[in-house]
Amino acid sequence: MARIADASLAAAVSEAGGLGIIACGGAHLDWVEEQVRKARSLTDKPIGANVMLMDPRAAEVAQLLADLKIDAVTTGAGSPVDYLPLWKEAGIKVIPVVATTAQAKRMERLGADAVVAEGTEAGGHVGELTTMALVPSVREAVSIPVIAAGGIADGRGLCAAFALGAEGVQMGTRFLTVEECTVCDPWKQKVLGAKDSDTIVTGRGTGHPVRGLKNRFARECRKRELACTNPDDLEGMYAGSLKRAVEGDMENGSVMAGQIAAVVRERGTAAQVISQVIEEAEALCNLDIESLAALNARQGRMLDD
Amino acid sequence: MARIADASLAAAVSEAGGLGIIACGGAHLDWVEEQVRKARSLTDKPIGANVMLMDPRAAEVAQLLADLKIDAVTTGAGSPVDYLPLWKEAGIKVIPVVATTAQAKRMERLGADAVVAEGTEAGGHVGELTTMALVPSVREAVSIPVIAAGGIADGRGLCAAFALGAEGVQMGTRFLTVEECTVCDPWKQKVLGAKDSDTIVTGRGTGHPVRGLKNRFARECRKRELACTNPDDLEGMYAGSLKRAVEGDMENGSVMAGQIAAVVRERGTAAQVISQVIEEAEALCNLDIESLAALNARQGRMLDD
Repeated sequence: MARIADASLAAAVSEAGGLGIIACGGAHLDWVEEQVRKARSLTDKPIGANVMLMDPRAAEVAQLLADLKIDAVTTGAGSPVDYLPLWKEAGIKVIPVVATTAQAKRMERLGADAVVAEGTEAGGHVGELTTMALVPSVREAVSIPVIAAGGIADGRGLCAAFALGAEGVQMGTRFLTVEECTVCDPWKQKVLGAKDSDTIVTGRGTGHPVRGLKNRFARECRKRELACTNPDDLEGMYAGSLKRAVEGDMENGSVMAGQIAAVVRERGTAAQVISQVIEEAEALCNLDIESLAALNARQGRMLDD
Repeated sequence: MARIADASLAAAVSEAGGLGIIACGGAHLDWVEEQVRKARSLTDKPIGANVMLMDPRAAEVAQLLADLKIDAVTTGAGSPVDYLPLWKEAGIKVIPVVATTAQAKRMERLGADAVVAEGTEAGGHVGELTTMALVPSVREAVSIPVIAAGGIADGRGLCAAFALGAEGVQMGTRFLTVEECTVCDPWKQKVLGAKDSDTIVTGRGTGHPVRGLKNRFARECRKRELACTNPDDLEGMYAGSLKRAVEGDMENGSVMAGQIAAVVRERGTAAQVISQVIEEAEALCNLDIESLAALNARQGRMLDD
């Protein structure tokens, strides 16, 4: 969640028992250092950071996080091969985000401590495989822990992810609306109001597809992509689009969110989300398969009453 | 599974406790009648049929199925509004396949008995929403039973689908490789050998995206689609592509399969698949969430041994 997940959200998530992640994508070094120190002043629990490997400052950020001895690093948009020795030497847990089983196997060979297997339903940069298809395949292929991401916003998703083979889950979209998330309120309102068909993938042609909520920007991107506009002109459109959204322009910015925004209807705090998700998942996991089906049937009929 | 799911597979699935579906898409009326009668000679259990609503013969097939008093009809690629009264009057259970929550609500209003909520990981004609995102949203929106489809080939998928809100599952890809499926053996071998990234969606530009296994045909389609080839020329490529695959041309035909082909490595019989899937799902559902995580951790470590 580049330009969104800062010390406020990360510390709240870690303090509540999760692993909060500070998103370093597109950020300046002093901001990263400031946020890590701030998060550590807010919680004694482990704190993680995400390094966007396409970021021109990735190498400097990687070194800074090693110097700061951040507890865990997740990586996206590339291979962390150049930074793994550095991070491992600093005692940092390295958890690459992968979109295919082949990537997961490569990351394990390189010495990754775990992988985040992220389905295409996620918000932001996405691959083609869905969580339902990716997680079981990755689980069968690697011996390190598999953390599922994409399409998970509640206990149903957590329980499903564990049934598919995950040992943990990463949630982004659900945390966009919590009190401690400093993203602008119009963005939160757009997530709270989203229907399941309100997200769209742009940039498929460029090799860097991104999922966000439909708006003027996304529709215009898609129109030009389908019309085979010159890639350079498209790059011009994408450039700065996340910054515009972060600054509050919900029509001309890239308002990233996952498909699961459809079931996100509450704000709450990070602690409330985490306890609700675990409570709901535990309740579901305590049901046998007939009882699960009966519960789902009851929930349907309740709509009639 | 147009041109694939015939009386042999449908009867075997129904006889094993599932609901076997005869795929009528692209088929002639006499073939449909022959297959329904044949299936009924092979099992006393209920038999279903799928009507592909874009099929030019859809109206005649709809009438024939009513006359034959088929037990259940699933529909795809359109709205069954014109045929619902006919089918309901014949005592047929009508189960439309939907790709969005809005479609599911519309189908419920029209009097559908249940919906199949199919994620984009499925093979053949697909929508944009994944099973993880679609099923919980549909479950919250309709009071009729929700059957999950897309990305389900084993007990992990069944358990996950039920956790997400489904009361049943539809599986296609897993049944492609069973003994009773009459699809050509090269197709079965391609599914058995598929990696998770071996499927691709063609036809996104045409509004009728289809997922199949990568081959010369699919790569050529994608190349022309990205190059914005004249839609008429593209239609020319798609025309007859399923027939070519069914006739054994694995390079120039549309070899439809879902992403979950990645975990399909066995043939077996329909009865074996159904009992294995239920057994595995029951075992998973009997674990609490910590035990599920521990099981997944063990499965990972077993690869090391």
